[in-house]
Amino acid sequence: MNKFFSVADIDDLSKVVQDALALKASPYENKALGENRTLGLVFLNPSLRTRMSTQKAAMNLGMNVMVMNMDKDGWALETQDGVVMNGTTVEHIREAAAVMGEYCDILGLRSFPGLKDRETDYNEDLFNKFVKFCGVPVVSLESATRHPLQSLTDLITIAEHKEVDKPKVVLAWAPHVKALPQAVPNSFAEWMCKAQQQGLVDFTIAHPMGYDLCEDFTKGATISDDLSDSLKGADFVYVKNWSSYVEYGQVHPVAQNWMMDNAKLALTNNAKVMHCLPVRRDLELSSEILDGPNSLVIKEASNRVWAAQVVLKRMLENLK
Amino acid sequence: MNKFFSVADIDDLSKVVQDALALKASPYENKALGENRTLGLVFLNPSLRTRMSTQKAAMNLGMNVMVMNMDKDGWALETQDGVVMNGTTVEHIREAAAVMGEYCDILGLRSFPGLKDRETDYNEDLFNKFVKFCGVPVVSLESATRHPLQSLTDLITIAEHKEVDKPKVVLAWAPHVKALPQAVPNSFAEWMCKAQQQGLVDFTIAHPMGYDLCEDFTKGATISDDLSDSLKGADFVYVKNWSSYVEYGQVHPVAQNWMMDNAKLALTNNAKVMHCLPVRRDLELSSEILDGPNSLVIKEASNRVWAAQVVLKRMLENLK
Amino acid sequence: MNKFFSVADIDDLSKVVQDALALKASPYENKALGENRTLGLVFLNPSLRTRMSTQKAAMNLGMNVMVMNMDKDGWALETQDGVVMNGTTVEHIREAAAVMGEYCDILGLRSFPGLKDRETDYNEDLFNKFVKFCGVPVVSLESATRHPLQSLTDLITIAEHKEVDKPKVVLAWAPHVKALPQAVPNSFAEWMCKAQQQGLVDFTIAHPMGYDLCEDFTKGATISDDLSDSLKGADFVYVKNWSSYVEYGQVHPVAQNWMMDNAKLALTNNAKVMHCLPVRRDLELSSEILDGPNSLVIKEASNRVWAAQVVLKRMLENLK
Repeated sequence: MNKFFSVADIDDLSKVVQDALALKASPYENKALGENRTLGLVFLNPSLRTRMSTQKAAMNLGMNVMVMNMDKDGWALETQDGVVMNGTTVEHIREAAAVMGEYCDILGLRSFPGLKDRETDYNEDLFNKFVKFCGVPVVSLESATRHPLQSLTDLITIAEHKEVDKPKVVLAWAPHVKALPQAVPNSFAEWMCKAQQQGLVDFTIAHPMGYDLCEDFTKGATISDDLSDSLKGADFVYVKNWSSYVEYGQVHPVAQNWMMDNAKLALTNNAKVMHCLPVRRDLELSSEILDGPNSLVIKEASNRVWAAQVVLKRMLENLK
Repeated sequence: MNKFFSVADIDDLSKVVQDALALKASPYENKALGENRTLGLVFLNPSLRTRMSTQKAAMNLGMNVMVMNMDKDGWALETQDGVVMNGTTVEHIREAAAVMGEYCDILGLRSFPGLKDRETDYNEDLFNKFVKFCGVPVVSLESATRHPLQSLTDLITIAEHKEVDKPKVVLAWAPHVKALPQAVPNSFAEWMCKAQQQGLVDFTIAHPMGYDLCEDFTKGATISDDLSDSLKGADFVYVKNWSSYVEYGQVHPVAQNWMMDNAKLALTNNAKVMHCLPVRRDLELSSEILDGPNSLVIKEASNRVWAAQVVLKRMLENLK
Repeated sequence: MNKFFSVADIDDLSKVVQDALALKASPYENKALGENRTLGLVFLNPSLRTRMSTQKAAMNLGMNVMVMNMDKDGWALETQDGVVMNGTTVEHIREAAAVMGEYCDILGLRSFPGLKDRETDYNEDLFNKFVKFCGVPVVSLESATRHPLQSLTDLITIAEHKEVDKPKVVLAWAPHVKALPQAVPNSFAEWMCKAQQQGLVDFTIAHPMGYDLCEDFTKGATISDDLSDSLKGADFVYVKNWSSYVEYGQVHPVAQNWMMDNAKLALTNNAKVMHCLPVRRDLELSSEILDGPNSLVIKEASNRVWAAQVVLKRMLENLK
């Protein structure tokens, strides 16, 4: 594996889940694999779970880790070619990525979308150029349109906790005070659509009018603007806010109450409730659920280590 | 040991000093103990000595260390329950602490007091909730009311440098330009009061009128507002500024000169002078003392490693 | 080696290059040397290449690394003696350096010049006091007037890529939008002047009128304000902007075009082009060169690891 950016980078979903759970059972068995190998984690945006879980995974594999928080270093990168760099960008991504590739065997990159211009964000220019110019395998630590380590984690967590062969999984939009990216829901949708193709889940997306995700990510999913109806028979509810894709980055007023709470949970098949975190309590998801027996959110966050570790292990095995 | 927050977490002070000095003599003997163990150091406020000495101690024990500077990540934590999180806090401590506990075997937390509301600070809500929700042993890296790694260090340093069996130790208030927390003097006082109970020191606190510490920390200490009188016969003088506890967080004008200098040192039994650092030269403590033979401040800072290491070692031994 | 601050800290330039290239061939052979040794990297200014390459070098040698970004911790250091510290500086360098020296076997320090007062910058007060008070070997990670790890890298890179015994090396001033320090050109000049003395290169400096470097760094160099003439027969062109030393820190308007491009490259002996990075594309150096076969900038950045590693190795061998 030379890139981990989307679900397209994994062929057999059952196999990767099985491999991840094997690492969870024996975390330190592959420490020789990472000896004298260096992972560079480059954050253009803040991170808690991704930073700690990926660093932990790398250390479990015996790797050295270097963390660069470039958002705080005032290190503005130029991504366009043909620009005379007489403004505020201090370094071109051609040099910055290439140099980091010289110091690291594997790189991770986090870069959020601007949510201003849809085409700019959705062409994933920054991420793609980073991959192109750094010359080493790259793990997405969340890009403008996807958060694949989160989605792989979610798949692992569903596999661990499912009580039927093919559980019904519902991605349910929820309210927020800020305009959030579509990266997590896009990514979850494309992973669940592929899982559905491979017979692993039955996948539904529920969101208010105006919050349609980009169709590239949702092929095969049942899509509805009726939350109550969608929740019927659900085994897993994945709660997440996102801003509008159609009116890009906008937040529409939503009349109906879309916060996930016990009343809505009662409509499901005693569903397990998931969220990528951080979660706004009693705005997106009720405290009664988060503090109750149906919440998987901490176990889900915990599984971030094994998602990262299985990806890094495959990349390490592919080196040289 | 599952928590290191106050002097109550240590029974036998002589024993812990002896253990720390044994580690100082052989720092790397316990590297197997920390293998595949991860320490997470979470700073909600800046740190130099605590960060470096605790990281060093953990590495001496063979641990992996992950440092999170959350003050700079704009990661404002909600600590209250029953709040609809539609404001500026991005994550509840219930989730944030629990998640970090999943990635780490031991956590350290630094969080300063707001110095606005005494009850809020003195109930140690943030620290206690962090301990409650993270599910792993927690070391205080300085909380709202205490700095126990500093106080343990101070005890070790006094034990190393004492020339009589039961030295006279004086905590002497000193001037500053900012309103500082009471954490260091509170903590030093509670450790010295316990040391006095165990027959190890004779303990006096000297401060101007209006700078009384909370009585919970000073039981058994001789307390005076006469600095010259207090210094008589002192073997150790511990210089430190703090803001008012009574008129909480306020800085009262003090007419008399409370800066520690050679003239005052002449009143003592050729006392060793201590300070937790950073120190404001020639405001709290004179340069002539800091650069002279009676200063222990660098040796004291150096001992921070062994205080942290003995605490982490006890926690590691208690894991599993 | 107890200090790495200038070219004066290296006697035999050929030998250090040879040693660095041996490390490049076998990076991990000296891991026992750094066991239980700690490198502290203290950044008062941001860093990408220096941070990552030096950390990598230390890990290759088996060392532990602690990174302190003190610019972002609001940890303003006082450097003057005899000052009553009742202002904004929170700690004196006497204590800060001494304490860090207690926790680390070797320290690295980055501190840029203020570019306001030449005497202040050129007496290297901060760096010298840090060395004096920390009590352990110190590596400059770029100081007010020099960037020796960069210059050693440059020497290694020239040695690797030269096609004649004594190549002609030209340091060529280039435009920029900001007022930059003279540290990199000063340092490159003093290393090349010494290399010229030792028969390794033939060294020329080309800059517009008013951009003379301090003579202490340029003894023996051919100096010209005619770029085209200087480039004739050049085997290596080292492109770099700097602000005025004479009218200290000022940026003079330069009528002529000093950007390095293919037209100018055609005047050389098919010269290899170097730059310490970050580079402003199409302002200092043309994209056609950076993306073409004559550019060494990435290989040069890559060699930063071996420059750091040979310096750290010599320091480690000298410990105890």
